[in-house]
Amino acid sequence: MPTSEQDFLAAIDRHFPAQPPCAGGVLLGRGDDCAVLDVAGPLCVSTDLFVEGAHFRRSYFSPADIGHKALAAAASDLAAMGAAPVACTLSLVLPPDGPDGGPGGVDDAFLDELLAGMAALSARLGLPLVGGDLSRGPALILDLAVFGRPGPAGRLLRRGGLRPGDQLVLIGEAGLARAGLLALEASGRASIHRWPVATRAHLRPEPRLAEGQLLAGLPGVRALMDVSDGLARDIPRLLGLLGLPGLPGLGPVANANLGADLTIDESLLHPEALAFFRSQAGTHDRSPGQTPVEAFVLGGEDYALLAGVDPSDPSGLSGVLAALPTARHIGTVTVTPGLRVNGEPFTQPGFDHFG
Amino acid sequence: MPTSEQDFLAAIDRHFPAQPPCAGGVLLGRGDDCAVLDVAGPLCVSTDLFVEGAHFRRSYFSPADIGHKALAAAASDLAAMGAAPVACTLSLVLPPDGPDGGPGGVDDAFLDELLAGMAALSARLGLPLVGGDLSRGPALILDLAVFGRPGPAGRLLRRGGLRPGDQLVLIGEAGLARAGLLALEASGRASIHRWPVATRAHLRPEPRLAEGQLLAGLPGVRALMDVSDGLARDIPRLLGLLGLPGLPGLGPVANANLGADLTIDESLLHPEALAFFRSQAGTHDRSPGQTPVEAFVLGGEDYALLAGVDPSDPSGLSGVLAALPTARHIGTVTVTPGLRVNGEPFTQPGFDHFG
Repeated sequence: MPTSEQDFLAAIDRHFPAQPPCAGGVLLGRGDDCAVLDVAGPLCVSTDLFVEGAHFRRSYFSPADIGHKALAAAASDLAAMGAAPVACTLSLVLPPDGPDGGPGGVDDAFLDELLAGMAALSARLGLPLVGGDLSRGPALILDLAVFGRPGPAGRLLRRGGLRPGDQLVLIGEAGLARAGLLALEASGRASIHRWPVATRAHLRPEPRLAEGQLLAGLPGVRALMDVSDGLARDIPRLLGLLGLPGLPGLGPVANANLGADLTIDESLLHPEALAFFRSQAGTHDRSPGQTPVEAFVLGGEDYALLAGVDPSDPSGLSGVLAALPTARHIGTVTVTPGLRVNGEPFTQPGFDHFG
Repeated sequence: MPTSEQDFLAAIDRHFPAQPPCAGGVLLGRGDDCAVLDVAGPLCVSTDLFVEGAHFRRSYFSPADIGHKALAAAASDLAAMGAAPVACTLSLVLPPDGPDGGPGGVDDAFLDELLAGMAALSARLGLPLVGGDLSRGPALILDLAVFGRPGPAGRLLRRGGLRPGDQLVLIGEAGLARAGLLALEASGRASIHRWPVATRAHLRPEPRLAEGQLLAGLPGVRALMDVSDGLARDIPRLLGLLGLPGLPGLGPVANANLGADLTIDESLLHPEALAFFRSQAGTHDRSPGQTPVEAFVLGGEDYALLAGVDPSDPSGLSGVLAALPTARHIGTVTVTPGLRVNGEPFTQPGFDHFG
């Protein structure tokens, strides 16, 4: 590991440009007490922890995967508002390397590769690194803060505000990253050869920033979020059932006790996820998330977008399906509370990073 | 510890108002994918890690001290820009409690007191909590992001831009928190009775937000920072010797190889710090930071403000000393590189949270 904060800052400067090439919204980058943003309007803010043991294992995440996924997961929260990227910060806790550090230490080459993986995504997304902090600690922990602003349509998309009869549309996969996680947990990086798409979905998710901004431009899209904990946990959040505040200027929030009917066919799963969960059927019969449909509803960390759309608006269901080839219609908002899948109540609790 | 993220969010809502009472600059608080700020102009951003073992020990920090100091240290970076507070976020890593968690676990009462300590400071400073994240992990770790905007004077104060002959002014203490740290390390909370001011300086620092905004209104103040790692490490940063970028609209940055002459009399130390370091003289002769003058120059975590002022401007040296009774003149910017204390070169490296 770097022996001083100055060494670390030098490593940061090697990977991330000190002056972002297109510094829209960034008045002052790294090196002072604060960074200074200037976006002349609403600024979206989100932070996302990426903690060894809870979110990743070094046994099958490469250092570059760690750098990539920490930023990707954070940036997905901007996509979930339909926001355009402005900047990010990184707070990094590094376990000491060397004789005192024990087997969990991080050496210079590891840190270099981690920063390179993050820097490549940062450059590609247009999320320049404007600051952060560094500390020693007992595990490798990254906390990313991301900043965004309304895209070309000038609109941000919240959760809540849905009505009975609104349609639920998924943009991206569900269950694919869970297949990758289970394969990696079972067989480590050797599973990458057999399940390349699923393991990549877990190791290298892509935040859907372009899709989010496009959706913000469709008036028939009433609500949007990203699915990080699986549909079963996240749909109630989209419905606004968890005490979302209603604030002037940012749209209404549902006060009805809504529910959702989902229609999930196995064909909605990515073929590799379907093959994976079918291959598991004999080995872990009845364990949660193992049948293809259960995996679709419970699987987390795909970072798909979930939209609630007005079916009567041409820019709603038909507009979204026409504009985004990856969009699939998965269900309907109901006045009946609870979640039903293919007509049956679905009560499995889903994925809690914390629980 | 809370058994689910939902329990944790309920604890947050008990302590921090969901709608900030004076929500200037906050369009949308907690509960959605992002918070949304709106400050119609420059927004200062900083993040600060507070890591068990590196920044604090539970053996002598009460839970409320931990919550207070994590936010205070982060908010001090806003003071260091002369910024007014807008909002903050908290990313929290909690070690599991109970039979699996081992002795380092955090129970509900501990978390409650920690949040109460943070919430009290948040309310007092006007830094509403607008978001964050939560994860399990192997130690108690807090990462605070803070957001600020220019105060009434409309000006932010950077590091750098100083000229030979400019004067250095300290607003607040130096060495006092180090006395408190050493006392707490030696005797735990029993030392609070004997060294109440010093231990409080370490456990409960106060960010100097009002002083920072006042300094931003004095044109003779050319540069400002907060002293978190001690004067010896931070003066070169104020002088802009560590590669600060120069950006249009935020003032010039020094390109000369400047230095500083400090004049440090023992009377500059707080009486309790002076008494502490005198009491230590016999026990740890010659160890760094143990003589009163060395402690003043090396001691970190006082979160004093350090200003570089123009001596020829009436709002410079005399203006600052008149406006702020806690301000003391401590030295002069020189064309000679390096740091000199009372005429002698000072080469001790100072405090590195990371090293």
